[in-house]
Amino acid sequence: MVLDVWFTEKHEDKQGISLKVKGILYSGQSEFQKIDVIDTEAYGKTLLLDGLVMTTEKDEFFYHEMISHIPLLAHPNPEKVLIIGGGDGGTVREVLRHPSVKEIVLCEIDGAVIDVSKQYLPSIACCLDDPKVKIHLEDAVKYIKDKKNCFDVVLIDSTDPLGPGVGLFTEEFYTNARDSLMENGVMAAQTESPIACQKEFKLINSLLNKVFSVVKPYFAPVPTYPGSYWSWTFCSGGGQPGICDDNLAAKLEKSTKYFNREIYSAVFAVPNYVKQLMASEEAVK
Amino acid sequence: MVLDVWFTEKHEDKQGISLKVKGILYSGQSEFQKIDVIDTEAYGKTLLLDGLVMTTEKDEFFYHEMISHIPLLAHPNPEKVLIIGGGDGGTVREVLRHPSVKEIVLCEIDGAVIDVSKQYLPSIACCLDDPKVKIHLEDAVKYIKDKKNCFDVVLIDSTDPLGPGVGLFTEEFYTNARDSLMENGVMAAQTESPIACQKEFKLINSLLNKVFSVVKPYFAPVPTYPGSYWSWTFCSGGGQPGICDDNLAAKLEKSTKYFNREIYSAVFAVPNYVKQLMASEEAVK
Repeated sequence: MVLDVWFTEKHEDKQGISLKVKGILYSGQSEFQKIDVIDTEAYGKTLLLDGLVMTTEKDEFFYHEMISHIPLLAHPNPEKVLIIGGGDGGTVREVLRHPSVKEIVLCEIDGAVIDVSKQYLPSIACCLDDPKVKIHLEDAVKYIKDKKNCFDVVLIDSTDPLGPGVGLFTEEFYTNARDSLMENGVMAAQTESPIACQKEFKLINSLLNKVFSVVKPYFAPVPTYPGSYWSWTFCSGGGQPGICDDNLAAKLEKSTKYFNREIYSAVFAVPNYVKQLMASEEAVK
Repeated sequence: MVLDVWFTEKHEDKQGISLKVKGILYSGQSEFQKIDVIDTEAYGKTLLLDGLVMTTEKDEFFYHEMISHIPLLAHPNPEKVLIIGGGDGGTVREVLRHPSVKEIVLCEIDGAVIDVSKQYLPSIACCLDDPKVKIHLEDAVKYIKDKKNCFDVVLIDSTDPLGPGVGLFTEEFYTNARDSLMENGVMAAQTESPIACQKEFKLINSLLNKVFSVVKPYFAPVPTYPGSYWSWTFCSGGGQPGICDDNLAAKLEKSTKYFNREIYSAVFAVPNYVKQLMASEEAVK
């Protein structure tokens, strides 16, 4: 008989996602956070930071395809890409599928996340040693301050607005991220759950609207995140989301698991209650 | 100090959704199944059948808007609608928003579901006494056998392929449902989770393809269902999904929470892995 062991990630002490655990592969404490890797029946190996699911082998594709292909396809020629956070390497792996990309700067505060991901999640971390990838182990809040006109695409692949990630959800940070973009540059950020984190979603959306002239949230499932329904937001100084190179998109969709060209447009449809949430003046409970 | 009580619905002994419980409002055993109503912090009052979440006050709109407005808007003049299952009344409520509808037949096997929903979930069951609604307390497998050319729209708002719902997921049943449609009739069915119930999704999809010439799955979140990512399938003898009356759709979207006209098209975008799942000859694990 096997042990009946379950991990439950509780969100706001109201709801949770429970995963049956086959084993605890790694538990450590870095300078910044608790890092664990558990092996789960449903989603395979699962990376936890401070007890919250960051990524799993079986559902990571939703998140990583959405944060990368949506903004990169909207840029006519993305060469230099900055990824903030993203130490598990999944976003790096997807960005490298774009042949125009010459350099990826990965600015991750916690080198231990990279080390643990390389060891336990090789299908996600597989491209972190690619020669196009430059890793900066630094707080992105500091890193980005003096970077002006440097990047074609900035991707904010952060944890939640808690712990080491909190400075990545401020008007000042978004302003610096905007100023780090070259002309025609685009940004995408993970912007929390439109169902389980409505307060955070609304706050981030209003901050982004102060900083960027084009702010377009988009939505997809991430089964192991709170509410299992997630958002990212496309931002730019004028360029709209859309596919610049249909041949490239057609080629990409041969290897993607969630993304395809129909999905590109579909994810930008905003549910009615989210429109109301964004328009309302009230704070959300 | 309040009690720290949690309900967890486990799916295939691998994953689960956990809800903090404020109270257990009703527990009973009908002729067909166990019926419970719990009050939850995150989603309000929640109806359980045989221990599985059927609907909740706070997220029911995703499911009920998707199963009703998508097929009804694709019919030029839906007058007679059959709802199979749906004893909680949410689908009835949404169907009644379509002014062309003259009669709704609700064929629910278990009258106790209707009674409990009326008592504990009035925001969902509110329209079950509408004069347009005819309730048949009968097994839909039997009910539908001799109904030929009767309905403009059939909606299969069933439980999962377990217990009393199992007969609603067979080629014979889908064939009888098809034959109950009038010319230009359309059907929609709940077709399980494309992430947590891939085997069931694929099986249902292949059965529907044997019976209908147009079979189009569509996808939306339902936070309290397994995987929190759900599917329904639009079926017809030739008519494609689409909005027949844009004025009606515009009017509907003033009161819907998830649905709007952009969402209508977006939900039909099929993720790449789902396309592969549907195309593959292999059984899914």
